Amino acid sequence: MIPQTTRDELFDLIGSLTSDRLSAQLRFVVEIDRLKTILRRTPIIDLSRRENDAEHSWHLAMMAMLLREFASPGVDVDKALRMLLVHDIVEIDAGDTFLYDETGQEDQDEREQRAADRLFGMLPAEQGTDLRALWDEFEAHESETARFARTMDRLQPFLHNIFTGGAMWREHGVNAAQVRKRMAVIADGSSQLHQLVLGLLDEAVRREFLPAGPAA
Amino acid sequence: MIPQTTRDELFDLIGSLTSDRLSAQLRFVVEIDRLKTILRRTPIIDLSRRENDAEHSWHLAMMAMLLREFASPGVDVDKALRMLLVHDIVEIDAGDTFLYDETGQEDQDEREQRAADRLFGMLPAEQGTDLRALWDEFEAHESETARFARTMDRLQPFLHNIFTGGAMWREHGVNAAQVRKRMAVIADGSSQLHQLVLGLLDEAVRREFLPAGPAA
Repeated sequence: MIPQTTRDELFDLIGSLTSDRLSAQLRFVVEIDRLKTILRRTPIIDLSRRENDAEHSWHLAMMAMLLREFASPGVDVDKALRMLLVHDIVEIDAGDTFLYDETGQEDQDEREQRAADRLFGMLPAEQGTDLRALWDEFEAHESETARFARTMDRLQPFLHNIFTGGAMWREHGVNAAQVRKRMAVIADGSSQLHQLVLGLLDEAVRREFLPAGPAA
Repeated sequence: MIPQTTRDELFDLIGSLTSDRLSAQLRFVVEIDRLKTILRRTPIIDLSRRENDAEHSWHLAMMAMLLREFASPGVDVDKALRMLLVHDIVEIDAGDTFLYDETGQEDQDEREQRAADRLFGMLPAEQGTDLRALWDEFEAHESETARFARTMDRLQPFLHNIFTGGAMWREHGVNAAQVRKRMAVIADGSSQLHQLVLGLLDEAVRREFLPAGPAA
């Protein structure tokens, strides 16, 4: 990293060369580069390393494009796509909370709200409000668009687990009953995708990618 | 990486559990995970490692969202965003060609066309055609939407260079005259952004992030 003083001087220069508005936008563009350093639990499929939030967000946006036909008629797919690009940005400050970590989830909301205040607050007011609204909508998972986006966010790590022989499940001692519970929301988005997930999960248990866990 | 035979068996299982169409789409979703392993010359801003194509694509799509007001009235920003998500996928087969590598650029087009045939050819026909058309439009940089997308694709690594003290420029012996030439297309997208880039480039020379190079 270059020294903070150099960084500040460069931002000051940008401020003197252009509008306050563009200047704030570029500060945010530079800040969110840090999403590339926030690691998730899931490895990339070649198992060479853990996945980061920025490339994960790209993958989800691609999936929303590719699987748009599984969206119910009320879904705004372009909006879902923007939502998925933005949905993890708060983790720059709040860190990644593991889906199966129930302790971490207790203060997750507070940490993420604070992160959203700081990060979206860097932008010109109306733009920060727009991005915050997009993130709030995703988090509330009440709108059909948010539910479709969440379906992508559950399906992608599931596929990573399947195509890495259950690497993350095994490392963290996750069982199929827990996965089934977390994947239930996919049915809100698409029953065809949900059925496929259940079929693959059964096969994963047969192949000992993960234990079955307690009966439902 | 899990054994190729296991992978094939899992894809066969998906084929038996669901439609050929979804099956082909998921094969593509898994295949493009490899974009996360294609490294660019540019480091991420904390200088800890080189940037990969997937996280780069995410960053560009975010920039298109954030800087949409710099798009001329004819630009379809949601389409630009989809274009940016897709624009580097061919590099899974063709590799990243360095912007300042004139030799590599000679056969770049042929390598990338072959890659596009294979990769977009994995998808259901009409979907593959749509994605290919998006990529073709980006590559031709004739439409206003493609020009706006290209502006993001030039601006992002430029900012990375500025905020890493010219790390990539220095490593590859790039001078300001070369950068100025490559950045000229930003003026097609937005004169305000182009003016800012020129101002920052002058400062970068003053700070010895890179040499000035031959006078224009």
